[in-house]
Amino acid sequence: MSDHPVDRGIDRLEAFSDGIFGIAATLLVLDIRVPRDAPDLAAALLAQWPSYLGYTGSFIIIGIWWAGHHSTLDMVRRSDHALRLFNLLHLLCIGFLPFATGLVAEYLNTGGRQFTTATVVYVGTLLLAAVTFNMIWRCSVAGGLLIPSLGPARIARINRINFYSLGSYVVAFALAFVLPVVALAICFGIALYYGLPRRALH
Amino acid sequence: MSDHPVDRGIDRLEAFSDGIFGIAATLLVLDIRVPRDAPDLAAALLAQWPSYLGYTGSFIIIGIWWAGHHSTLDMVRRSDHALRLFNLLHLLCIGFLPFATGLVAEYLNTGGRQFTTATVVYVGTLLLAAVTFNMIWRCSVAGGLLIPSLGPARIARINRINFYSLGSYVVAFALAFVLPVVALAICFGIALYYGLPRRALH
Amino acid sequence: MSDHPVDRGIDRLEAFSDGIFGIAATLLVLDIRVPRDAPDLAAALLAQWPSYLGYTGSFIIIGIWWAGHHSTLDMVRRSDHALRLFNLLHLLCIGFLPFATGLVAEYLNTGGRQFTTATVVYVGTLLLAAVTFNMIWRCSVAGGLLIPSLGPARIARINRINFYSLGSYVVAFALAFVLPVVALAICFGIALYYGLPRRALH
Amino acid sequence: MSDHPVDRGIDRLEAFSDGIFGIAATLLVLDIRVPRDAPDLAAALLAQWPSYLGYTGSFIIIGIWWAGHHSTLDMVRRSDHALRLFNLLHLLCIGFLPFATGLVAEYLNTGGRQFTTATVVYVGTLLLAAVTFNMIWRCSVAGGLLIPSLGPARIARINRINFYSLGSYVVAFALAFVLPVVALAICFGIALYYGLPRRALH
Repeated sequence: MSDHPVDRGIDRLEAFSDGIFGIAATLLVLDIRVPRDAPDLAAALLAQWPSYLGYTGSFIIIGIWWAGHHSTLDMVRRSDHALRLFNLLHLLCIGFLPFATGLVAEYLNTGGRQFTTATVVYVGTLLLAAVTFNMIWRCSVAGGLLIPSLGPARIARINRINFYSLGSYVVAFALAFVLPVVALAICFGIALYYGLPRRALH
Repeated sequence: MSDHPVDRGIDRLEAFSDGIFGIAATLLVLDIRVPRDAPDLAAALLAQWPSYLGYTGSFIIIGIWWAGHHSTLDMVRRSDHALRLFNLLHLLCIGFLPFATGLVAEYLNTGGRQFTTATVVYVGTLLLAAVTFNMIWRCSVAGGLLIPSLGPARIARINRINFYSLGSYVVAFALAFVLPVVALAICFGIALYYGLPRRALH
Repeated sequence: MSDHPVDRGIDRLEAFSDGIFGIAATLLVLDIRVPRDAPDLAAALLAQWPSYLGYTGSFIIIGIWWAGHHSTLDMVRRSDHALRLFNLLHLLCIGFLPFATGLVAEYLNTGGRQFTTATVVYVGTLLLAAVTFNMIWRCSVAGGLLIPSLGPARIARINRINFYSLGSYVVAFALAFVLPVVALAICFGIALYYGLPRRALH
Repeated sequence: MSDHPVDRGIDRLEAFSDGIFGIAATLLVLDIRVPRDAPDLAAALLAQWPSYLGYTGSFIIIGIWWAGHHSTLDMVRRSDHALRLFNLLHLLCIGFLPFATGLVAEYLNTGGRQFTTATVVYVGTLLLAAVTFNMIWRCSVAGGLLIPSLGPARIARINRINFYSLGSYVVAFALAFVLPVVALAICFGIALYYGLPRRALH
């Protein structure tokens, strides 16, 4: 390791992660089926609006998670085993999203208990992604992996942001059992909220 | 951020984008189905010519969009939130192309209203890709994200090129409702035209 | 080659390999099917627990193989033809895992001879991955491709680790014919065991 | 462009190409189907031997093409439009291989005219890949894009190698119409032959 610049391990960790984020986002499109032999194609296409919504929502959520992952690893100067392990578990959750999205899209129209079940799976996946994302950050802090220029005030602020974000996903997950539409809206809202003013993190 | 060279954010943005362009292009092949138990395989293969046309056309269009994206980001020295957001929306459109291509290929033979509907979806996707691509460029100009060596004359020229390109997609989209084959030809023509003499941009 | 820094070939070899590891891991999700028109969705989802187990297990195994690949190539300063060939054969085994995983997940519930057959294929794939991984390391040692700072004691230690790892896969493969569940547990255990204390390699 | 080091364009061209090579290779696995409800799973798995052969053969061919692409671009110091265009067309052929492989695997057992047709498509795809690969090299020579240290003797030698390689694919393509098995063997042989002694190129 001493033969390579310090952040080389981080670079390859990022490349592997970027690949999985990018592929998971692009595989979402496979859940949208081309209607075969549809006499009224426009109607058939409109009828699968949940698929487009699922594609758009999950693509944006994955993109914003990717940006968060990117800006967290920008503050990390080297990786240790725990960080790599939680990174892998985080990617496991991201890679599961195409399935969870397809599930919600399939039962969005149906409503009722089936839609609730599908939403619990989807929001549960995001909650696990949030938990593992928090662990990546905590490992970086606890393991002394951060770049030295990060002051304690900034670390405390990021701790707070990550804690509130995780808390929001816990609330969304609890709500998924009773008000699935609200839970989905919260998940999308969290992504946008924590995604948009990221300038504040810098 | 101050611990890293300035363009590191751009590098990872490019890596993520490259991944999505590459995967979207490669997933196009999944729309071409292997004929099963075809007694006359040559005939069965020839009968799915729209799939090969769709694969070839969209692969080249994605490749040329990728080159345009690449040469635009070459002029950007750092990213801000708006640029990252529009980049994500641009990738969302690119990632949608395998579905839109499969749709056009499925109904190219059918003709009539169904083919028109499919073409409207396809050209509409390209139009949205062009809109978001323009926004990437505009954000770069407005946010002061460009490399300093770009003179105002060159910026004005690129503005003009992007404006005409976007205008052509608007025309193609309008035509898609009445003359779908012409609209598709225009889309392919725009890609080639703006793709080929890119040396002029440098 | 003299016009480029020495490790450029390694960098592109790593990029190609990272791509295949990442895509193979992400394609695993395609084996999990969205239940269609399930009257009791929760029950239908629970019934496909082997798919989730397969996804999780293989994702983690691929991630840990990736980390091992990464830390091995970190000790290599340039590639030769034999290394590139065995790297390709290693990637061939990794790329086969989505199929082998789908096979085990499909027959995990069935049990009996079919589950044994599926497990033999899965563990056999991992064994071949271990063989080719060992060849990558042996080629690096024999071909003088390692970075100079690696002392003979460290090389001997890595030889030993790789030898025991390969031996464990041979045992797992033999067991797959008679005790498939145990064989799968061993494979997952090896990955975790050799994955976790990798700090010892440095 | 003047604001960036000279080979940056090549780097991103390589990243995009690496992505497509890697994804095309990994998508090959999707052509291997998990047998459902097979009473004799071992027999069902053995019956699809053409799929494993297709996966292995095409994975190795793509890997060796990738290595050739890599070692050619190592000799290129910048790209121009023609090089980028032929690179895109080369990637178009590579991206088509998962379909062509699935086609040959489907009809390998059938034999007869259908197998001949499938082989013509497969070998034709490789021939087009060889033509576009040659064009990448010719554009590099004609456009003065090579690194200065390449002497004329070495350029002449690579010209010769590329010419013989292309000639072999022409022969294989002609043979595909009459002796498809021989044509496939030649394609695999060419890849191995030109892939193995690549040290001679350096």
